[in-house]
Amino acid sequence: MNITLSQAEKIISVAKAKSIEIDTKMNIAVVDAGANLVAFGRMDGAWLGSLDISIKKAKTARYFDMNTGIIGGLSQPGGSLYNIEHSNNGLITFPGGVPIKNAAGDIIGAIGVSGSSVENDHTVAEAGASAI
Amino acid sequence: MNITLSQAEKIISVAKAKSIEIDTKMNIAVVDAGANLVAFGRMDGAWLGSLDISIKKAKTARYFDMNTGIIGGLSQPGGSLYNIEHSNNGLITFPGGVPIKNAAGDIIGAIGVSGSSVENDHTVAEAGASAI
Amino acid sequence: MNITLSQAEKIISVAKAKSIEIDTKMNIAVVDAGANLVAFGRMDGAWLGSLDISIKKAKTARYFDMNTGIIGGLSQPGGSLYNIEHSNNGLITFPGGVPIKNAAGDIIGAIGVSGSSVENDHTVAEAGASAI
Amino acid sequence: MNITLSQAEKIISVAKAKSIEIDTKMNIAVVDAGANLVAFGRMDGAWLGSLDISIKKAKTARYFDMNTGIIGGLSQPGGSLYNIEHSNNGLITFPGGVPIKNAAGDIIGAIGVSGSSVENDHTVAEAGASAI
Repeated sequence: MNITLSQAEKIISVAKAKSIEIDTKMNIAVVDAGANLVAFGRMDGAWLGSLDISIKKAKTARYFDMNTGIIGGLSQPGGSLYNIEHSNNGLITFPGGVPIKNAAGDIIGAIGVSGSSVENDHTVAEAGASAI
Repeated sequence: MNITLSQAEKIISVAKAKSIEIDTKMNIAVVDAGANLVAFGRMDGAWLGSLDISIKKAKTARYFDMNTGIIGGLSQPGGSLYNIEHSNNGLITFPGGVPIKNAAGDIIGAIGVSGSSVENDHTVAEAGASAI
Repeated sequence: MNITLSQAEKIISVAKAKSIEIDTKMNIAVVDAGANLVAFGRMDGAWLGSLDISIKKAKTARYFDMNTGIIGGLSQPGGSLYNIEHSNNGLITFPGGVPIKNAAGDIIGAIGVSGSSVENDHTVAEAGASAI
Repeated sequence: MNITLSQAEKIISVAKAKSIEIDTKMNIAVVDAGANLVAFGRMDGAWLGSLDISIKKAKTARYFDMNTGIIGGLSQPGGSLYNIEHSNNGLITFPGGVPIKNAAGDIIGAIGVSGSSVENDHTVAEAGASAI
């Protein structure tokens, strides 16, 4: 199973609405089960540097099928995955990347959000991931 | 002047409709005046390899403010811009990238389309660029 | 609004004067609102390795519309943005990158300075950013 | 012997004047004897994609101590340097890159110009290289 463009667009739409609700400007990326970009939107005035970060968060979440923040907890100095960020042309391991599951619980893609605090990024990513 | 996300989404929507009309599956990318991605959509079943090509076409069209195919005509062996594709982390210089202008005629971004013949790619890009 | 070459050259000139005043040799880069280089100058005898750092500092300051040192405070081990430097083909997050605003307060670009202590780098960047 | 920043700035100033005289908008880069950037200026409205090309032209001219167009004549299909552009993170081998010599005839750097036809690019590069 793989995410469709229609699903990805709905996810971005819901993520945008949540972003507006909490007064933030986000970059929002959705990748498929192969970790390849399906849809992307950068809200007007969102940080330029968050463009790449949002895509890397989505890829990271799908690469390891878990929220990016969990990986970040393991990649600290002394941690078991120290500096894992050097792999895959650059991972982003702080919160804001979340796997996307279908109704059957299969992972069909991931969303990455960047543009505010990591807490806000994660909130918007969760809202998007829950949209389908 | 810079393109808005709302404009970019309308452009992608119109490009998708044209793509369906001519029975193709496309990757569609829109960049802003700074050549940074604003919105992207990959239609279900579209070639994976066209993802990067569509983004590079959009960037190339904005980098030089002209249709990508024009550059490709000049970059052939013996041409004045031979192997210009080695610059800017990789250009794509065959058709499918088109600048986007506002009502006043200012270039505010560019669209890149990839997924079919270059003629079809260009047709869809033109349809998208004409949407605003 | 975007910075002009004339403004960028004035900024570099003022930054050079400040650098001479505090007896340092700097690389000085100015990017526009799209984070693309507008002007650059490397003072005679300045560290070669600071060339790339000055450009990355300017880009980083514009990517996130804040001084680079602020980001560095958040990207430490255990911090919320740990290892953000892996994004955008490499960020530099210690001091020396400063956004440039016009009279209306809009961010129109950024300056990055490298070649001495980070305190001196920041002092010279601030001097440059204040020149217009 | 190596070019100074003061010399590089004079070269860019003269190149800009020539560019205005022939009604073009150029990206102008000057590298030193080590092929590292010394000074750069992008004229308002110049092509964004020419930023990287101008720097690559300057580097290419210094890498081989000859005008870039000469290399391009040898890198064509069947030529002795076919696809040399793949080296050094990307060369640009069409005209617009010219070595810079001091009064004694020693090569102390190179200039790269991009933003118009290759003939105009070369004309502006020659004007700049002749300024010192």
